[in-house]
Amino acid sequence: MSGFRIDNLQYANWSEKIFRQMRAGGLDAVHVTIAYHETFRETVLQVERWNRYFEQFPDLIFQGFHADDVQLARDTNRTAIFFGFQNPSPIEDDIGLVQVWHQLGVRFMQLTYNNQSLLATGCYEDDDTGLTRMGREVVTEMNRVGIVVDMSHSGERSTLEAIEHSTRPIAITHANPHRWHAALRNKSDTVLRALGDSGGMLGFSIYPHHLAGGSDCTLDSFCQMIIDTADLMGIDHIGIGTDLCQDQPYSVVEWMRVGRWTKGIDYGEGSASNAGFPPMPDWYNDNRDFGNIADGLRNLGMTQGDIDKVMGDNWYRFYTDSFGGA
Amino acid sequence: MSGFRIDNLQYANWSEKIFRQMRAGGLDAVHVTIAYHETFRETVLQVERWNRYFEQFPDLIFQGFHADDVQLARDTNRTAIFFGFQNPSPIEDDIGLVQVWHQLGVRFMQLTYNNQSLLATGCYEDDDTGLTRMGREVVTEMNRVGIVVDMSHSGERSTLEAIEHSTRPIAITHANPHRWHAALRNKSDTVLRALGDSGGMLGFSIYPHHLAGGSDCTLDSFCQMIIDTADLMGIDHIGIGTDLCQDQPYSVVEWMRVGRWTKGIDYGEGSASNAGFPPMPDWYNDNRDFGNIADGLRNLGMTQGDIDKVMGDNWYRFYTDSFGGA
Repeated sequence: MSGFRIDNLQYANWSEKIFRQMRAGGLDAVHVTIAYHETFRETVLQVERWNRYFEQFPDLIFQGFHADDVQLARDTNRTAIFFGFQNPSPIEDDIGLVQVWHQLGVRFMQLTYNNQSLLATGCYEDDDTGLTRMGREVVTEMNRVGIVVDMSHSGERSTLEAIEHSTRPIAITHANPHRWHAALRNKSDTVLRALGDSGGMLGFSIYPHHLAGGSDCTLDSFCQMIIDTADLMGIDHIGIGTDLCQDQPYSVVEWMRVGRWTKGIDYGEGSASNAGFPPMPDWYNDNRDFGNIADGLRNLGMTQGDIDKVMGDNWYRFYTDSFGGA
Repeated sequence: MSGFRIDNLQYANWSEKIFRQMRAGGLDAVHVTIAYHETFRETVLQVERWNRYFEQFPDLIFQGFHADDVQLARDTNRTAIFFGFQNPSPIEDDIGLVQVWHQLGVRFMQLTYNNQSLLATGCYEDDDTGLTRMGREVVTEMNRVGIVVDMSHSGERSTLEAIEHSTRPIAITHANPHRWHAALRNKSDTVLRALGDSGGMLGFSIYPHHLAGGSDCTLDSFCQMIIDTADLMGIDHIGIGTDLCQDQPYSVVEWMRVGRWTKGIDYGEGSASNAGFPPMPDWYNDNRDFGNIADGLRNLGMTQGDIDKVMGDNWYRFYTDSFGGA
């Protein structure tokens, strides 16, 4: 089976409208963020919230646990929702929670969200000291149970050490190449090559701060970047992770940026004059636009087989290899 | 398939020795208590502890989620461990935690442990006011997700209301008939008939305070009580729930009795002069003695088919009907 459509990172203000847009966009699976700075107990509340959605909208969505659930979604015209964390806060200081979270369906966990964590260094810190003692232990445990190490918001050294230490391929679920757009969150050729060589995956982000030209980035520019990255990393190691933050109020971007780690304000990738969520490019407003990426790649001459790999089949293969116990 | 061996209630001081005794006793499944008074987070620590055991002793035990796991245990010479609570404290005041616990493998939950809870009245309270408002909601949710309502430590009215309100058969996992031994924890004929008529299950306890003659109770007396209860409730509605508390220190029986609900001391079924765990009858010291019950029933003339029902096949059927979503 092939031709799957997977968006491997979203954090929207979930609603029936958005779930219907996922169906309209033909998405077989979406990896959703359920924690930024939440404690264990607070994140369980997010699981409860999703359980309510699954109960309310069984014809649109269900929780995905295994790669097979992507096929099940396709077969039943629904979208499989896979859980992930953008920060290790939900495991607190307790390695035993890694397996508990896997049992509850979490399949991706970032070791850091911009700042230093108990596990590794975020991309906004001045000095990156790599994986911590606990970080190495937790990566080993994630490898054992089947939670993917995600280094989207981590520093360069931490990312390279995670690739090296992890016995299973890791992911950068939502970022773009630094050489295309020199944002702090985008990744160097060194990281991308190491990621591809180790069997890992990069998900291309459409969050405007990660795009050359920001909100004015053209579909052509985005798709040419994908083609160039395929040349760098290999066509089998790339996919989509839009970072779609649809319908979120300003309070949420503030929570993402500052959580409870400062009493002040930090604008992250934004600025005082541009503090909120930036407007999305006109070719990507919501899940219904997912196919536009395929169209853009086709216009630039990519073959259908390669387009299918980028649009979901690579993530599907990666899910197959990653979500079970070692 | 038949001839399963299931002990549907134990709370031992778990160790490799005990897991090996489960194998020696031929137990295909054991329902273990993982909470008495623990909060949500504290109970997660018990899940973590069990995950460690499953990782350490994969040749002896594994976590059971479905009735099929009893067959898997039989096929692989292991014991399937099913989780349960003797108190609803792990859901705190949050009905959303019912489904979360089902996802983590919990399959039985008592609505009360001796005292009044948020859900119902325990058997030690002076007045039993039946299911509370939240109690009715939680029973409905337990029915939906597939957690069995267990009324072993509940008052009479609460038990009858749980049988009535629950749309799926309930269980009294560990208790005996009050007419055989008039302990506060043992159950009236009214309750046992209502339980059997509604398709529910009674597990016979070997905890000495529940036995006629206490620690001196004979195997013959225990097995005759089983036969008499089969006449009352029907042979399809009875099984074993030994309440084996092997190798537990005194501190644990104290925790079971007083938790954090009093600064004083409550001796529960014991007394100041007999405060600890009472000695087990000589025919039941540990899991290796499980087959003695079958021998005792055979000596009293029970057929092999009926013995198999009591020793595990009834619980197996009940698991099949109870552990999945409604």
